[in-house]
Amino acid sequence: MKAGIINIGSELTSGLVCNSNASHIGKILCLFSLDVGFILTLPDRVDTIVKALKQVCDGAQLVVITGGLGPTHDDCTKEALAKFTKRKLSFHKETAELVEKKLLERGVRISNERFLGAYQPEGMEILKNPIGTAPGLRFSHRGTEFFVFPGVPVEMEVMAEQYLIPYLEKVSRERRTIKVIRTFQLPESKINELLEPVIEEFPLLDVAFLPRHISNDIVINAPSEEKISLDRFVEEAKRALGEKIYGYDEDTMESAVGKLLRDKNLTLSVAESCTGGLVSNRITNIPGSSEYFMGGIVSYDNSVKINILKVKAETIEKYGAVSEQTAVEMAEGVRNVLGTDIGVSTTGIAGPSGGTKDKPVGTVWVGYSDREKAFAKKFIVDYNRELNKLIFSQLCLDTLRVELLREKGEGK
Amino acid sequence: MKAGIINIGSELTSGLVCNSNASHIGKILCLFSLDVGFILTLPDRVDTIVKALKQVCDGAQLVVITGGLGPTHDDCTKEALAKFTKRKLSFHKETAELVEKKLLERGVRISNERFLGAYQPEGMEILKNPIGTAPGLRFSHRGTEFFVFPGVPVEMEVMAEQYLIPYLEKVSRERRTIKVIRTFQLPESKINELLEPVIEEFPLLDVAFLPRHISNDIVINAPSEEKISLDRFVEEAKRALGEKIYGYDEDTMESAVGKLLRDKNLTLSVAESCTGGLVSNRITNIPGSSEYFMGGIVSYDNSVKINILKVKAETIEKYGAVSEQTAVEMAEGVRNVLGTDIGVSTTGIAGPSGGTKDKPVGTVWVGYSDREKAFAKKFIVDYNRELNKLIFSQLCLDTLRVELLREKGEGK
Repeated sequence: MKAGIINIGSELTSGLVCNSNASHIGKILCLFSLDVGFILTLPDRVDTIVKALKQVCDGAQLVVITGGLGPTHDDCTKEALAKFTKRKLSFHKETAELVEKKLLERGVRISNERFLGAYQPEGMEILKNPIGTAPGLRFSHRGTEFFVFPGVPVEMEVMAEQYLIPYLEKVSRERRTIKVIRTFQLPESKINELLEPVIEEFPLLDVAFLPRHISNDIVINAPSEEKISLDRFVEEAKRALGEKIYGYDEDTMESAVGKLLRDKNLTLSVAESCTGGLVSNRITNIPGSSEYFMGGIVSYDNSVKINILKVKAETIEKYGAVSEQTAVEMAEGVRNVLGTDIGVSTTGIAGPSGGTKDKPVGTVWVGYSDREKAFAKKFIVDYNRELNKLIFSQLCLDTLRVELLREKGEGK
Repeated sequence: MKAGIINIGSELTSGLVCNSNASHIGKILCLFSLDVGFILTLPDRVDTIVKALKQVCDGAQLVVITGGLGPTHDDCTKEALAKFTKRKLSFHKETAELVEKKLLERGVRISNERFLGAYQPEGMEILKNPIGTAPGLRFSHRGTEFFVFPGVPVEMEVMAEQYLIPYLEKVSRERRTIKVIRTFQLPESKINELLEPVIEEFPLLDVAFLPRHISNDIVINAPSEEKISLDRFVEEAKRALGEKIYGYDEDTMESAVGKLLRDKNLTLSVAESCTGGLVSNRITNIPGSSEYFMGGIVSYDNSVKINILKVKAETIEKYGAVSEQTAVEMAEGVRNVLGTDIGVSTTGIAGPSGGTKDKPVGTVWVGYSDREKAFAKKFIVDYNRELNKLIFSQLCLDTLRVELLREKGEGK
């Protein structure tokens, strides 16, 4: 079944807002095995919308439209839909009453212009909006089924759940399963090489690679009747990729680390220089992280490394703040000072300046310390400051994860 | 001048990735006063791409395409472009050599499949990719100028700067000026009320509101000949909105705070509980922040508040960790322990659990301490855990910013 998505709003075409509605609807359609042939983003302009609707909707069984349903002067989706389907726009009393009531509840003064929202193309089904004031629409036109939702993401999401999903459950014969295998520190070409025989073994599974800076994902899209093949694929991928897999589906590196710390009953502290608090921040994005994360020291200035973390001044003097020795002493220091089972650390050069010939921008040392050992690993990456910090934090969490896999976990 | 954007990639149409390339290009085109008539996102499928190119490019003077230029089996943009323009794909020796060299540098074993990236449509200009392996393309077809960039955002951004912007500087007769005024802690309806007379005074300026969780922005889009009106608008907005304006254009709350600290020659330290390192992380996203930011303590566990920050155990026992008293002692503590001019703190409940009737999820106390005073302010927000943390961090930075505006700044 062929489908398309149209998102209307000049804030989208001018790049002021990223089009997250498109990915939300795309994900839903894909789950129901629909073939999304296009996502079209258009400015708030009647003629442009009408022309585009005529061009792209042909051949699509379903088109989901978002945006431009509100009452302000730039909202023109309903006018465009009326022109496209050759219907009249007429005053819709129930909508007007509903909008009036909702606005009054919010204490909003009502002007005539506001009521423009109450004009609807004749003969279309009006879909109630449980949150906002602008209702949605549903209609058929030349063999295509149209759903029209407001552009406010939270309203669109609720209405997609209420109207679109029940429709898809009826019309879509098969529901697909999408499984994501998440890896790190394994280049796409290497994943390709390791998984090639597995991919060939399961020709009915649709396998794609999604390389990103902090995750190289393998996305498997399977028809529901191939559930057993999918499970077997995942098992074989596990064997092929081993501990490079840090999680599945919605897992993140910080959730993977959190699960291991909790399972092994171990506590963690973090000493950060170049990542500036990002490692601690990511760890504490996980609900319940207070069970294993005691705290962190952001030792941006060397005085903090020396006074709080008890890194030896001679170490910094002799080897520099960005060095194996300093990284190890930071990890040991934070573990001792905060009294945790494990301490990890980062010290490096995020850029754009501060690099030297020996220690270029993008150099990071990740330190690790537990009761039995302490070490540091060096990595070099080369992006902008924020991306370097993000990748540094991922390298730190991944180093911790791999050590945790080997930890016996005697606990506190 | 009419323009369009086409982003190719099944990871986009299936909703796995949000299309940030579209907003990046959209912003550039808009700055050069181009009229972006469509953004079209298409799956990696030759026929679909060719059909869409034929439908939408007609009438556009410029089309920017991203994605699908890589060497893997699903990348098919070049094949589609060859079909669309009726050209042959032929082996391109320079590209092959370049790809080979770049891959060798990364220690990647070269297989034949990788070389698919070296086939290019004949007669198109090959645009060198300074970061990745896949080059871009440039060509004209039936009155439309095409620029084709890889889909990896960081590569696309660099190449847009290198190839697209110089082209636009030549062809675009007028460059629009887009000015963004950034405010926080002022609802959209209040901004509207305060700015209404100013907006009416300058009818040639296109003014839009862009409300977001950590910033309520006012976007003014002006023809270049209205530069004086724009400047006057900004001056009058300053008078109307006062210190609620924290910055302009690319400014962030952390860059605004950094500028003030630097100007006043003051040093800062941060004690974080509920924000878990996010405040420190944001501060250190600014290059050169090591000049004023000494470090931070993430005192997630109460033991860290007591042992490192020297918060009195009785304070926590009597008032709780989430309280005015604890927030003040945390800010004072971090300022003393790290020896800075100013200390700020956060302690709150990010959720989803941990709330009580008196202290619901979303409650945060932001503490502030300098040599003359110490205080804490309470805020309540209500989103999910990560968004709560983000807003808490913004409230902390904004509290600091407003105090800094009043600081005389005697320095260290």
